[in-house]
Amino acid sequence: MKIHNFSAGPSILSQYTIEETAKALIDFAGTGLSLMEVSHRSKEFVAVMDEAVALVKELLEVPETHEVIFLGGGASTQFLHAPYNLMKSKVAYLNTGAWANKAMKEAHYFGEVIEVASSKDSVYNHIPEYTVPSDVDYFHYTSNNTIYGTQIKEDPEVDVPLVCDMSSDIFSRPIDFSKYDMVYAGAQKNLAPAGVAIVIVRTEALGKVDREVPTMVDYRTHIKAGSMFNTPPVVPVFAALQTLKWYKAQGGIAGLQKLNAAKADLLYGEIDRNTMFKCPVPNPKDRSEMNVCFVMSEEHADKEKAFFEFASSKGMSGFKGHRSVGGFRASIYNAMPIESVQALVDCMKEFEANN
Amino acid sequence: MKIHNFSAGPSILSQYTIEETAKALIDFAGTGLSLMEVSHRSKEFVAVMDEAVALVKELLEVPETHEVIFLGGGASTQFLHAPYNLMKSKVAYLNTGAWANKAMKEAHYFGEVIEVASSKDSVYNHIPEYTVPSDVDYFHYTSNNTIYGTQIKEDPEVDVPLVCDMSSDIFSRPIDFSKYDMVYAGAQKNLAPAGVAIVIVRTEALGKVDREVPTMVDYRTHIKAGSMFNTPPVVPVFAALQTLKWYKAQGGIAGLQKLNAAKADLLYGEIDRNTMFKCPVPNPKDRSEMNVCFVMSEEHADKEKAFFEFASSKGMSGFKGHRSVGGFRASIYNAMPIESVQALVDCMKEFEANN
Repeated sequence: MKIHNFSAGPSILSQYTIEETAKALIDFAGTGLSLMEVSHRSKEFVAVMDEAVALVKELLEVPETHEVIFLGGGASTQFLHAPYNLMKSKVAYLNTGAWANKAMKEAHYFGEVIEVASSKDSVYNHIPEYTVPSDVDYFHYTSNNTIYGTQIKEDPEVDVPLVCDMSSDIFSRPIDFSKYDMVYAGAQKNLAPAGVAIVIVRTEALGKVDREVPTMVDYRTHIKAGSMFNTPPVVPVFAALQTLKWYKAQGGIAGLQKLNAAKADLLYGEIDRNTMFKCPVPNPKDRSEMNVCFVMSEEHADKEKAFFEFASSKGMSGFKGHRSVGGFRASIYNAMPIESVQALVDCMKEFEANN
Repeated sequence: MKIHNFSAGPSILSQYTIEETAKALIDFAGTGLSLMEVSHRSKEFVAVMDEAVALVKELLEVPETHEVIFLGGGASTQFLHAPYNLMKSKVAYLNTGAWANKAMKEAHYFGEVIEVASSKDSVYNHIPEYTVPSDVDYFHYTSNNTIYGTQIKEDPEVDVPLVCDMSSDIFSRPIDFSKYDMVYAGAQKNLAPAGVAIVIVRTEALGKVDREVPTMVDYRTHIKAGSMFNTPPVVPVFAALQTLKWYKAQGGIAGLQKLNAAKADLLYGEIDRNTMFKCPVPNPKDRSEMNVCFVMSEEHADKEKAFFEFASSKGMSGFKGHRSVGGFRASIYNAMPIESVQALVDCMKEFEANN
């Protein structure tokens, strides 16, 4: 039986990424050695890193003002390193969920943190209205909220530089980097296996803080060394390159954006039509195209377990909602084929017909 | 032709590790999904993490006083996080090379750093004598110096707690943890592909510093969450588990120690016997069993390139010395079979006979 992987993260990668990486684990670039055991300074691996950085720049149209680096670890480390590098004394954060909270917490070590708005009281089921003070060093937001199924799909219009955690929706839409001092993303939603993060940072914004920034924390260390100051996580970086190549073959960001919209329309359309289900995010504008949350409607609240078992029996996997919100969550990241979304929609229709 | 991988790092892993990890990249634990795309909170991956931690404890006989955690990134991050967590105001470091220097540099952010001794003036070709003051918070050393081919093979006898970077010789000898507040190791020499570090820390030593320790930096965060506070690097952790299983099958630490001694004796024996080569580390006590450095003898100094080409043509790979010392370096970590060491020795004998 075909398994449809709706896991929220680590999550589905393209078959191309999986197959090419598995092959390289046996013989990397014709070296006769495994990708896991070759020097990161070998010409074969340096070529992988260079091509990965170049493809990120090409796909996202990163301007000359910004640099792209690959760093070990994930986005959680950048919650700390972003303010360490960029925050002078006062910053503004938008509280749209658990990850936004974690990011905000780390900024408190460096000065004043203004929470411009929060949707906590409604279990983060919408993107709140907000105003950003003009005297902050940057405004930080989380573009996609995996747990609650909400997303900010357009670059905010504010008067200060933007810093954004795009872990779960990077490469799904174009980014206007002229507005951003920094965009960062852990790899394990839309790029590669866990263990690497991409940081895209405006070089001019670095070196402006008064505090001492330790070597490994300073983004300039990694920019100067071409992401090779220390040994990079070679397997995740190689896998990232395969995904980037696959993205390019899908028509780049424009192609992915179109495909993602079609997948989201198909699934939200069925949730809204099917009387057994409903979406906890009322405003369609706020609904995530990456993580589609849905729960049983009131009159069918007792059938949650039955639907879970039915859909599981049909090969649906990883679609349970986060424990803090319950219900279901279908994560339909860039690599998710529309056929898998259709398979889930078919389950929902069949379950309705059976009940 | 069989390739013999003498790379200093990333470096040779057991064939078992390579094959099992490549298989899991296609189908992980019978899930029908790739290891790269399953949730780290799935019961299958939680079992991997639990078994990996348990096997580190079993193989190294880690006492109840210490905890084992797997952290994203490598040892370079721990150069900073070790003093962040453990240094109150004054520490002592032994300077045995480039990595020791990098570690020492990060400690300077937190107070006074005493360099107890340095072998810099002789290009780090020996382990210097030293005395550790009794009023420091800890004494830090690098047990094996990959670039210069030196190693401290026994736990130092000092009056203060030890902190040690064992990246390149962990699992090669027993460790008396009663002497250590912390041992850390990047994975890519003796355990797994780059992207994860092991930290073994005395729980009682944590929480004693006055400074605020940010969430991701605080080892207690990761101990409490069982190395799952954030998404761990799943592929390196899985590969580490395979290596640990393979270590157990080799007779554990005792078995590896015996095998490593035999490999080192074989290669140093040939270097000392063969008139064309010599070892830059004069004292056999200081010679590394992990990285065997050798250069051409004075009368054959002009044949370095010729030997490199000859040995390369026989399948030797990654055995060029570090640019700061020149010559050759054969890294013969735990996973290196004695047959590969014999193949290199055969090259040296044949080269001597031909010249």
